[in-house]
Amino acid sequence: MAGIQPFTREDYAARMARAAEEAAAAGLAGVVVTPGPDLVYLCGYQPTAITERLTMLVLSAGEEPQMLVPVLERPDAETAEGAGAVLLTDWTDGQDPYNAAIGLLRPEGRYGISDSAWAMHLLGFQRTLPGTAYASLTDVLPMLRAVKDEHELARLAAAGAAADAAYGDILKVRFAGRRETEVAGDLADLLVSYGHSQVDFTVVGSGPNGANPHHEAGERTIADGDMVVLDFGGLKDGYGSDTTRTVHVGEPSDEERKVHDIVREAQQTAFEAVRPGIACQEIDRVARKVITDAGYGEYFIHRVGHGIGVTTHEPPYMVEGEERPIVPGMCFSIEPGIYLPGRFGVRIEDIVTCTAEGGRRLNGTPHEMRLVG
Amino acid sequence: MAGIQPFTREDYAARMARAAEEAAAAGLAGVVVTPGPDLVYLCGYQPTAITERLTMLVLSAGEEPQMLVPVLERPDAETAEGAGAVLLTDWTDGQDPYNAAIGLLRPEGRYGISDSAWAMHLLGFQRTLPGTAYASLTDVLPMLRAVKDEHELARLAAAGAAADAAYGDILKVRFAGRRETEVAGDLADLLVSYGHSQVDFTVVGSGPNGANPHHEAGERTIADGDMVVLDFGGLKDGYGSDTTRTVHVGEPSDEERKVHDIVREAQQTAFEAVRPGIACQEIDRVARKVITDAGYGEYFIHRVGHGIGVTTHEPPYMVEGEERPIVPGMCFSIEPGIYLPGRFGVRIEDIVTCTAEGGRRLNGTPHEMRLVG
Repeated sequence: MAGIQPFTREDYAARMARAAEEAAAAGLAGVVVTPGPDLVYLCGYQPTAITERLTMLVLSAGEEPQMLVPVLERPDAETAEGAGAVLLTDWTDGQDPYNAAIGLLRPEGRYGISDSAWAMHLLGFQRTLPGTAYASLTDVLPMLRAVKDEHELARLAAAGAAADAAYGDILKVRFAGRRETEVAGDLADLLVSYGHSQVDFTVVGSGPNGANPHHEAGERTIADGDMVVLDFGGLKDGYGSDTTRTVHVGEPSDEERKVHDIVREAQQTAFEAVRPGIACQEIDRVARKVITDAGYGEYFIHRVGHGIGVTTHEPPYMVEGEERPIVPGMCFSIEPGIYLPGRFGVRIEDIVTCTAEGGRRLNGTPHEMRLVG
Repeated sequence: MAGIQPFTREDYAARMARAAEEAAAAGLAGVVVTPGPDLVYLCGYQPTAITERLTMLVLSAGEEPQMLVPVLERPDAETAEGAGAVLLTDWTDGQDPYNAAIGLLRPEGRYGISDSAWAMHLLGFQRTLPGTAYASLTDVLPMLRAVKDEHELARLAAAGAAADAAYGDILKVRFAGRRETEVAGDLADLLVSYGHSQVDFTVVGSGPNGANPHHEAGERTIADGDMVVLDFGGLKDGYGSDTTRTVHVGEPSDEERKVHDIVREAQQTAFEAVRPGIACQEIDRVARKVITDAGYGEYFIHRVGHGIGVTTHEPPYMVEGEERPIVPGMCFSIEPGIYLPGRFGVRIEDIVTCTAEGGRRLNGTPHEMRLVG
């Protein structure tokens, strides 16, 4: 997209400074960041693989950001856009990386740590520095990446627009007589052709497979009369797309229309509930109420949504028990579904952001049940 | 490959029983397994994505294996080959998964846990069951997946043969004037065409990029006179390949020949040192001695090897400090290298298994420096 500029060293420095300040405000000595979405977000660094070799960024208020890397990955780390604002140190195979980590951590400090940090590394810190303590970033700093700035919103909107375009094209392909994996391949190609650098999932759940929310795509041949759940997304310019539409091959039955209408109403009702200050769990509740009132509550077996940014699952989660309020700039999915075991499933999902006035969708194709061939 | 049969429920049940027994013998209450290579190895289950939603398999001697899964992933879990030998339980979004985990863990038990389990989950166990204790499987049960049986060896050999075939073909493509990423794409296509279901890395490090051991492939245009490190691998029938050869575009200089000869001698010397009972670190030492004696010790900046199986980095590690002995059936890389910053790099890597008689290579293309066009 014209207008999308790479994040700069200054952008990353500002994010790292804010993380350190938020940690201090939460009573933490700092933040321990390992490879994955936190590291990408905070300093623009992604090792070629996430392995047993320890890489850690430590952010503490009033101190320069420090990152410990395996010496053989140092050249890669140095090229990361945010690395210029980080003091790099390294360790070599055969050394104990946790001893090397001592220099970066306060012996009695309590730290927030990346959710997906390897248990092996956390245990190494706990063993080497028994006075330290840890809590997951989702527990102690859930807002760290949750509120998007205008540049992030532009990326998420561009990713959503690309997913919209892919959906527009997939409606024109042949469904009946082809395997789910073939349609999934078409979807992946379309996402790439519309600018995605990475395809994370292309769910094609036809007939009874649609009743398994985490079914990807299998060898089943799609048939006339099938309901087909299409859930697809990935990364474009480093930010995620995640869209679900449910289509039908040929004419649907009355029950299929009814279930689709219920899910559509649940999605719309939840979307309309989005406003600053409402608790995240309310978005789940209002969608669930529509489905429950229609008699299908037991078949809606997952939360209604998850945050999205540099990765496709992150806080805020729209789930019962999440009492924190929605804040303008948060971006998350709203994706109610009904899953009838052995028969079919329906899910409709948009990515939504909260503005001062309420919800705004970041992908925009219509929700009506499209009939495909 | 003809002769490669899928692992059965009985195979997985036997692996799970052995893991529980080995845990008990090591004084552990059991093993906590999360999605990743351990779970694939022990029960043949791989969720479509590894996410914040807790999935855990618990193995304890004298007890039936138990697995806790998110309810929406239960249909997938039930189809895993080993799941028939596991008691499945589930939790639902909005519940606390760590409360659900209480039923699977002994309140005062000490467990081995998958290296790559999410820190968020480990902290959840520690918080919910403060009497429990954990250590990483690499620390307490490093042998769990290290010794391969004949069926695993057949798969690793087939993966190595496929990598050999890909290498044979890549020598025929054009290097000079093409970007690294183009040659890397060729390598990936070749691995898939020879039966790989997953390509994990296709390093093409030309000229100075070869001096960065973890460089993948970039936009640099390969030129006449370049040394080019090719390091490629992935999974075939669920087991890994990992081969490195260093080729040259046109005629090499005397120094390039010399450095390549040193690495080749180091690789051969380390290979010949493989025998039952020798400490893993000795393999590293003998390779390092060849390179150090030749005056290049400071440019060999990583361990000489890593185990390989259902994933491409696992115990045993051939690294200084690893004093455990090599056992017949272990499979690991031997991959010495010399990296001259800003100039070029050379690495030669084979996957080797230990037999009663000594080392046997699982990939077999010659080590000589091949000249490409």
